[in-house]
Amino acid sequence: MSGEKILIAGAGLGGALLAARLGMAGHDVEVFERRSDPRNTGLAEGKSINLAISTRGFHALAQIGLERRILDMAVPMRGRLMHDRQGGTVFQPYGTGKDHTIKSVSRGGLNLELIRRADEFPNVTFHFDQACTGCDPDRPAITLRGPSGQTRDAEGDVVVGADGAFSAVRRSLQRRAGFDYSQSYLRQSYKELTIPAAGDGGYRIDPDVLHIWPRGGFMLIALPNLDKSFTVTLFWPPEEYPGLDTGDVTGFFLEQFPDTVPLMPDLVQDFNDNPTGSLVTVRCDPWHHEGKVLLLGDACHAVVPFYGQGANAAFEDCTVLMDAVLEHPNDMAAAFRSYHLQRKSHVDVLADLAIENFQVMSEHVMSRRFLMRKKFDHLLELLFPAAYLPLYTMISFTRIPYGDAVRKAERQNRALGWVVGCIGIVAALSVLAVLL
Amino acid sequence: MSGEKILIAGAGLGGALLAARLGMAGHDVEVFERRSDPRNTGLAEGKSINLAISTRGFHALAQIGLERRILDMAVPMRGRLMHDRQGGTVFQPYGTGKDHTIKSVSRGGLNLELIRRADEFPNVTFHFDQACTGCDPDRPAITLRGPSGQTRDAEGDVVVGADGAFSAVRRSLQRRAGFDYSQSYLRQSYKELTIPAAGDGGYRIDPDVLHIWPRGGFMLIALPNLDKSFTVTLFWPPEEYPGLDTGDVTGFFLEQFPDTVPLMPDLVQDFNDNPTGSLVTVRCDPWHHEGKVLLLGDACHAVVPFYGQGANAAFEDCTVLMDAVLEHPNDMAAAFRSYHLQRKSHVDVLADLAIENFQVMSEHVMSRRFLMRKKFDHLLELLFPAAYLPLYTMISFTRIPYGDAVRKAERQNRALGWVVGCIGIVAALSVLAVLL
Repeated sequence: MSGEKILIAGAGLGGALLAARLGMAGHDVEVFERRSDPRNTGLAEGKSINLAISTRGFHALAQIGLERRILDMAVPMRGRLMHDRQGGTVFQPYGTGKDHTIKSVSRGGLNLELIRRADEFPNVTFHFDQACTGCDPDRPAITLRGPSGQTRDAEGDVVVGADGAFSAVRRSLQRRAGFDYSQSYLRQSYKELTIPAAGDGGYRIDPDVLHIWPRGGFMLIALPNLDKSFTVTLFWPPEEYPGLDTGDVTGFFLEQFPDTVPLMPDLVQDFNDNPTGSLVTVRCDPWHHEGKVLLLGDACHAVVPFYGQGANAAFEDCTVLMDAVLEHPNDMAAAFRSYHLQRKSHVDVLADLAIENFQVMSEHVMSRRFLMRKKFDHLLELLFPAAYLPLYTMISFTRIPYGDAVRKAERQNRALGWVVGCIGIVAALSVLAVLL
Repeated sequence: MSGEKILIAGAGLGGALLAARLGMAGHDVEVFERRSDPRNTGLAEGKSINLAISTRGFHALAQIGLERRILDMAVPMRGRLMHDRQGGTVFQPYGTGKDHTIKSVSRGGLNLELIRRADEFPNVTFHFDQACTGCDPDRPAITLRGPSGQTRDAEGDVVVGADGAFSAVRRSLQRRAGFDYSQSYLRQSYKELTIPAAGDGGYRIDPDVLHIWPRGGFMLIALPNLDKSFTVTLFWPPEEYPGLDTGDVTGFFLEQFPDTVPLMPDLVQDFNDNPTGSLVTVRCDPWHHEGKVLLLGDACHAVVPFYGQGANAAFEDCTVLMDAVLEHPNDMAAAFRSYHLQRKSHVDVLADLAIENFQVMSEHVMSRRFLMRKKFDHLLELLFPAAYLPLYTMISFTRIPYGDAVRKAERQNRALGWVVGCIGIVAALSVLAVLL
């Protein structure tokens, strides 16, 4: 790969981290980004859409020496705090250890650090205000549209599509025979809202947990920010609440989430100003084209946000890709095939997990059965740390590939079924022995 | 719908038949087609890619008064004739009745008749050499590119996308949030070949059957044409035979289909001249947009060709759509919703059936078990004509919706299992009674 010119479409989380990895490895990299340079414009004021970074993400950040820096700007969350309609709460920890916390990070702040880090390498160049609108996979080349609308082509040896769920690079592959593709939407949409810092400059609610107001088919969540505010997100099916977009927002919140209304002074304005987002799952196959084009992150596997793994999975892509490139230093096509083969089945599993987890977060978290099972899981983990790991722990606090984690969890559940069954039989026989 | 201007993108089988239906019903229709007018250019010489029309298709053709005309130009096939490597053959009939034949029809000839029929209505206008390259679903309008490359917009009250598996109209919906879409390719490609008429002007092989040379993961098939030739199609996985495209075509055919080599004097030239096709399944949801845009046929549900139902399903779309429009004459959005609701689940089932049937045609047809089961099925159908219908019969010789047919077949299989089980138990008890 050395000596080859690599064009990256997209300086989002995945594209910027990959640029840094490639820069460290001495490659010639040019990154093209639709948005303006965040180092000049600053972050969108206050609107720091946040995300949760966990073990996989921090591993990839450590590989470019950014782990400590990002940990410093993160707010650790040690579990979920569920709020019912009456204002009552239940807490459920994410894991058993002190380090079993997922980290709430500002997306904009994280992106800025990644760009700064990548730009430290003289062989990495960023071009902002350059939207990638198309790609010719065979040259390979990308078409870029500048701020005044003019377009130009940039040619390289490899094009990386890190341009998100609506990737223009992927679209160029999509029209070719043999390229499998699917996009599938949840019926829920989402809307970002804000709980600002309190008047005294502190947090208005507990800052070390992820807050959930689970209401079945819809829910509200809140993640803490470093500036003492919370980023709040409403997930709801618009078809079942057709009036909400135009109607009585405060009334809806007073009915469903009464304790949040005093926390959000700008609720109605935020609701009306902020766009309604949709939740898409994207799958495709293959993720590459003849050693010339490669897809990464949301561009090849956008997932819904309910397992907090979207950014972590994109970062892990970079880890696996750079290992594959090291293994096949002179055969890009082989490296890309290996990367795709190692990742594809695992992110397919993640996509399903993320969809299923909406029901967990919006519904199951309030059930006694769910909370009991979580406690039982954590007890088993403490008793048999070498043998038993709950699924959430494996996904969030280890780097076990997603598919392997799910298979291990299934094996554990079967074994548990046997053990519980045997204990039951022994107990029944003991009772019989005593009685007879 | 009356009085509204309807634009149809695509004058292929589905688009032309719909134009005729709408024309008959008195609607204002404009049809735009990428290709030139086949009434001027004639059919592509000799290359009449053919297809099988069965009951669903003829029902829709009867609705525009074309059933007899098309029957006259069709070659009925009463079953499959399987050829093994040694030149041996086995015959398997499609059904039990004399009318249980599927009809081999020239695609070009059928298309021509449909265009002629639709063009008889003064309120239907065809525009050829006009490729639909895009669509604005909200106006609605389509962008057309003429023969010299100039583009223009055409605006109407309704746009119908009948523009095939790679539909530009569908693509305009695909970029909108909430539009589910998937395209998925089989690993098999296909290549059209020809068995020309014999020197004496007759057929070179049996003309009243569909010929199959089943070879497991690949196969050759041949359908009769009215001009005494056969359209031959090779389906094979190029990745497993990488040399075939560039290498020894005759050698491959001599090894795998030795009896066909003398039948195809132009084999090598046809193989090299004809493009390699791919086999795609397309699914999407919804098939319409706000009573303004509607998808039909391959544009919303391209299926692989192995159940011979692609064109039949597109024709049946027209039947269901026109019924829905009759039911909701003043509410296009309601009519489109009803059409989508009635069709979607059934063509999803058809897509799966068509994929499964590749294995049936390329592999199972040679197994004794499969042939026995077919005979048993036909026996049951003759004995209990009111109660038992084999799945193939329901799909090809009835208009039972695809999904209902599959569920009925599953019920029949379960009942059959019970009956066979009971007979077994009675037999075993009788033996016991005799022995004891």
